[in-house]
Amino acid sequence: MAEGLPALGWAARDASGHLSPYSFSRSHQKDDDVTIKVLFCGICHGDLHVIKNEWGNALYPIVPGHEIVGVVTDVGSGVKNFKAGDTVGVGYFRDSCRTCDSCSNGYENYCPILVLTSNGVDRDGATTQGGFSDVLVANQDYVLHVPESLPPAGAAPLLCAGLAVYSPMVMYGLNAPGKHLGVVGLGGLGHVAVKFGKAFGMTVTVISSSPRKREEALERLGADAFLVSQDPEQMKAAAGTMDGIIDTVSAGHPIVPLLELLKPMGQMVVVGAPSTPLELPAFAIISGGKRLAGNGAGSVADCQAMLDFAGKHDITADVEVVKMDYVNTAVERLERNDVRYRFVIDVAGSQLQGAAA
Amino acid sequence: MAEGLPALGWAARDASGHLSPYSFSRSHQKDDDVTIKVLFCGICHGDLHVIKNEWGNALYPIVPGHEIVGVVTDVGSGVKNFKAGDTVGVGYFRDSCRTCDSCSNGYENYCPILVLTSNGVDRDGATTQGGFSDVLVANQDYVLHVPESLPPAGAAPLLCAGLAVYSPMVMYGLNAPGKHLGVVGLGGLGHVAVKFGKAFGMTVTVISSSPRKREEALERLGADAFLVSQDPEQMKAAAGTMDGIIDTVSAGHPIVPLLELLKPMGQMVVVGAPSTPLELPAFAIISGGKRLAGNGAGSVADCQAMLDFAGKHDITADVEVVKMDYVNTAVERLERNDVRYRFVIDVAGSQLQGAAA
Repeated sequence: MAEGLPALGWAARDASGHLSPYSFSRSHQKDDDVTIKVLFCGICHGDLHVIKNEWGNALYPIVPGHEIVGVVTDVGSGVKNFKAGDTVGVGYFRDSCRTCDSCSNGYENYCPILVLTSNGVDRDGATTQGGFSDVLVANQDYVLHVPESLPPAGAAPLLCAGLAVYSPMVMYGLNAPGKHLGVVGLGGLGHVAVKFGKAFGMTVTVISSSPRKREEALERLGADAFLVSQDPEQMKAAAGTMDGIIDTVSAGHPIVPLLELLKPMGQMVVVGAPSTPLELPAFAIISGGKRLAGNGAGSVADCQAMLDFAGKHDITADVEVVKMDYVNTAVERLERNDVRYRFVIDVAGSQLQGAAA
Repeated sequence: MAEGLPALGWAARDASGHLSPYSFSRSHQKDDDVTIKVLFCGICHGDLHVIKNEWGNALYPIVPGHEIVGVVTDVGSGVKNFKAGDTVGVGYFRDSCRTCDSCSNGYENYCPILVLTSNGVDRDGATTQGGFSDVLVANQDYVLHVPESLPPAGAAPLLCAGLAVYSPMVMYGLNAPGKHLGVVGLGGLGHVAVKFGKAFGMTVTVISSSPRKREEALERLGADAFLVSQDPEQMKAAAGTMDGIIDTVSAGHPIVPLLELLKPMGQMVVVGAPSTPLELPAFAIISGGKRLAGNGAGSVADCQAMLDFAGKHDITADVEVVKMDYVNTAVERLERNDVRYRFVIDVAGSQLQGAAA
């Protein structure tokens, strides 16, 4: 430990997922690395799954966090695009193999040996630790410029939640003025999808199981219409009207009623990951030649384009900013979706010390 | 009846699906119509479902058949592209509304009021009767030129089975030399997909539950590789290698092992329609950003392009040609997949008369 860069964060030690102060060290900055003082870090549903080992891949101790906004404090001699003082972001991954087909073709987010920002394995074999900590070192090719115009707390969730919806919208042409986009679920991902959809000039309909989100969707987020997914009349009236749907719901839910909302050859994108399989009758996609795709994050280039677009259109996530000593409560509340819409930890403004590791 | 064009065919009268001779009349040729003497008509799985009312939409009596090759005997005064003596084809539909988004954008196969060639409702309200009959009248815009170089019996199944696999291959870029295509199921659709894949210059792997189809796939159809879908070792060794998969299997089957064969952002197309829903865990498409689409037939333009391509590359379906009086036996055999690979009725060479309607 003495040989690395000292870092202080909060980590989970076991499948309880309980987070507490943790002193550790990071690899020193290399020539092509950027050293970042973490300002804010969002709490993503993925963090919950990882710290409780619900995906069975936990590498304890785990410092979670991959929606990171910070300020550059130092750069290696080979770094060209960043300088001390820059506001930057780091997302879901911070390195990849750079040689596979995915890396070569600009979608390194699907690299089979992707180095995740937290609970990952670095190319030197070290376990990676995330953004619930004071300092981070990352390779310049995986660091993003965050527009100075954006409040950094609200920008943090864009690095994962924002990218997860922006990337497929652009990939599948769901970014064209006049097209009709459905957004299923109004949570961390969904509310940002509505904002992007409106900024793209689209007609946006929110589809939710909860009628009480109508006002929020229409009045505050500016959606054009609202459908209660449990109301067959409403759903039927909207059948065949949508060019695309972004489904952000991570609880099990029927998808046939959603596919029926699509026009012929319409595209649905699944970004939420229910633990039970989706039931997909073949006829629901054969008639109408409909399309269903999954999406995992997005490339570095997509991420930068998304941040630039967000900067231009003043798009940030709606966040509840908390201090680190509230993180365990925040995790509990997030588990019952009691947040509008994303928790962000004010890392730089928090007291990180406490019990030693 | 006396006012129409007399026609003789074989029809199902009820859900037994039993076919027997049937005298009926067709609408007379209009200015933009083509009158066709039917030569050959394929028997499609769809015909089976319709004549037994398994899709609940039967309009008895039903003359089935929508894989039709014939010769033009007369044309209306407004017909420009066809003349008497031309070899032509008619597929799954023979008219559409011509004004909806789908029709306007060249994918009239998804028109909501598509006029099916058999068991459909024409724009004048008449029930349509298919190709198991001596004569057919169709609008010129929905009639296809069949290359004279192709044997007409083998060409007939191209009008539905061929189009069903060719259309998505082109739509999703699965027609590029060097790409790797998986074809699931070696039946009426699958064996044509293999032929198209090889003609496109692709590497083609057949995936089948039946090890006994290996030789047929490799030796006779020219596939490059063969995977037994029940063999986890074989499937694992091929994981992540395919650009696309055409799944032609109409019996219930697991799709996760197939999705695992795809490269990141690979495309699977479902053209077979199992009666039980496919089970699709979201993670199976989110990791790798994979894509699943349904496909229903194809447009008229796609169909003509497919026939032209087939003519250029001498592609036909492998068929067992039968006379009309064998049709009930053929239907029984088709139900147990006892055909290599498609039954085609020699309509012009059959005795169609028998008991009166």
